[in-house]
Amino acid sequence: MSELASESSALIIDVHGHYTTAPGEHQAFRDAQLARLADPSMPSPNPARISDDAIRDSIETTQLAMLRQRGGDFMIFSPRAAGMEHHVPDAVTAREWARASNDLVHRVVELFPDHFAGACQLPQTPGGTLDDSVSELRRCVEELGFVGANLNPDPSGGHWTSPPLTDEYWFPLYEALVDLDVPAMIHVSSSCNPAAHTLGAHYLNADTTAFMQLLQGDLFGRFPTLRFVIPHGGGAVPYHWGRYRGLADRMGRPPLSEHLMTNVFFDTCVYHQAGIDLLHRVIGADNILFASEMFGAVRGIDPETGHHWDDTKRYIDNLDMSGVDRAKIMAGNARRVYPRLDKLLAR
Amino acid sequence: MSELASESSALIIDVHGHYTTAPGEHQAFRDAQLARLADPSMPSPNPARISDDAIRDSIETTQLAMLRQRGGDFMIFSPRAAGMEHHVPDAVTAREWARASNDLVHRVVELFPDHFAGACQLPQTPGGTLDDSVSELRRCVEELGFVGANLNPDPSGGHWTSPPLTDEYWFPLYEALVDLDVPAMIHVSSSCNPAAHTLGAHYLNADTTAFMQLLQGDLFGRFPTLRFVIPHGGGAVPYHWGRYRGLADRMGRPPLSEHLMTNVFFDTCVYHQAGIDLLHRVIGADNILFASEMFGAVRGIDPETGHHWDDTKRYIDNLDMSGVDRAKIMAGNARRVYPRLDKLLAR
Repeated sequence: MSELASESSALIIDVHGHYTTAPGEHQAFRDAQLARLADPSMPSPNPARISDDAIRDSIETTQLAMLRQRGGDFMIFSPRAAGMEHHVPDAVTAREWARASNDLVHRVVELFPDHFAGACQLPQTPGGTLDDSVSELRRCVEELGFVGANLNPDPSGGHWTSPPLTDEYWFPLYEALVDLDVPAMIHVSSSCNPAAHTLGAHYLNADTTAFMQLLQGDLFGRFPTLRFVIPHGGGAVPYHWGRYRGLADRMGRPPLSEHLMTNVFFDTCVYHQAGIDLLHRVIGADNILFASEMFGAVRGIDPETGHHWDDTKRYIDNLDMSGVDRAKIMAGNARRVYPRLDKLLAR
Repeated sequence: MSELASESSALIIDVHGHYTTAPGEHQAFRDAQLARLADPSMPSPNPARISDDAIRDSIETTQLAMLRQRGGDFMIFSPRAAGMEHHVPDAVTAREWARASNDLVHRVVELFPDHFAGACQLPQTPGGTLDDSVSELRRCVEELGFVGANLNPDPSGGHWTSPPLTDEYWFPLYEALVDLDVPAMIHVSSSCNPAAHTLGAHYLNADTTAFMQLLQGDLFGRFPTLRFVIPHGGGAVPYHWGRYRGLADRMGRPPLSEHLMTNVFFDTCVYHQAGIDLLHRVIGADNILFASEMFGAVRGIDPETGHHWDDTKRYIDNLDMSGVDRAKIMAGNARRVYPRLDKLLAR
């Protein structure tokens, strides 16, 4: 860790990476799970046995190489978001799938401790109890050293059958998050609704919907230290900031700065300069966390710039702001919002 | 019309206004409709008898006064969006409600022909045939002189049970829109889903979802002259323009400029300067139509500016652009996208 400690002032932390390059055997386990749900006479599958070399191969020349090439140092790493598939209602299946996915992320972290920390998938199901999610969160944070979690506000996958995030249905999970002092990224999984494309509609809609749920309620009055990161630049929210300020006023809620912005943060997964410019202009440096979501929704190279769409550091480099603000966005806010990451890095 | 004709070069057209100040008797008719659905022994209600004076009172000192005060001349006017309530499954109820709502808008247009043109509510129901919608569209355009329609991509009200807009389910309506040469504004109604607030989530999500549906398909290959206006500044789309360009590339679709932007337009219902700045920077003057949605989602005065949040003309006035581009946004594009409006204004 000496390399990190000495460079901590210049450290660049990407808070939103998914293990989208996991070895195929992991998906084969998932496929076997689903096959057994369809035909219970099949044997109960076990998580794949994957060698350290296979994990190294899946990271070193892909996600880690790209992180370093783009100037990043450290990434908060979680299982593939679209692969969480919380819409599958069987609790045992969800539990084993989350556990296997988190264990695999943990092995990446163990092999590359200078570059990755874990954020866990929760074994949510549509309408199911959150007991297993609380247990898995505790296991990942207390036993595996994870620093955050991904919380799906719509386990149904595009049908939105769960109550709003302000409902007491969610409170057991919030109590654990607060107790462990880890934030949750609000992140849905695959869309099961043909009307809503996973990457081009469902993800952004979920970000927007979650923010509005928080605006309507008073969740942080009840849980003052609970923290949420809303990914993909906050969905539609910063672009419609005036709408939300006006709705808060019309609905008799406090100003957003007081009501939500001590507890809610947006990442920088917005894949063009104009979007990042707006995010910075409207939201300000205290509530923005650097992230790329690589390798995520938008792969490949923008022909207009010659650079990867999701190389979001380039857009931030172009922002006109102080060094203090830049340091907040690139690392300081991450260490503040994810205090267990801060402790990891300080070691 | 002489006043309009002589000033046509400076005419300012707001393409998105709803009759949110309609006399209470109209809502009483709706309430009676719903009461009868709950208790079929009740008498079948008739649309309210509303006097010309009552309609004048509901417009002159409210919507028209505000339109004029803000510098606008003309508004495309449609029934209250949240009141369309397409989630009510009874076809007869939907038909009579749409007809009464459109007739009321028509009377506004007849009383104030220099300032309003009609866009119709369609009698959609979740999963229902579009026959009644086609009939009502034809009646409104051919008999009442309406210039556009509001098309709800999610009649279920937040459950998204309808097929994507590219599905042939919608084709009969598109054939009528093309035949009549009127565009549709993609506009949902009230949310019936407690997870999605009508104004702060459902509306914006629908805009985003619809755009992505169009990106995935090739609807305008089949209907090259079909035109859609996506309201509320296009939902999340312009803020995430890089994401959509990247997704189109990844999915092997043509560039957005070729694939969609001959047929898709965004309005300016974005209630702060930074949002309008982004819209103009990213989308460009050819695909933006001036609109305020007054009196709509966000009423009242922004304490930071001292002006109404939805006084969107102020934000556009602040844009640095040529007079030609300004004229496109404030009127020219509206006359191009709504050719029946152009004919009305030219008379």
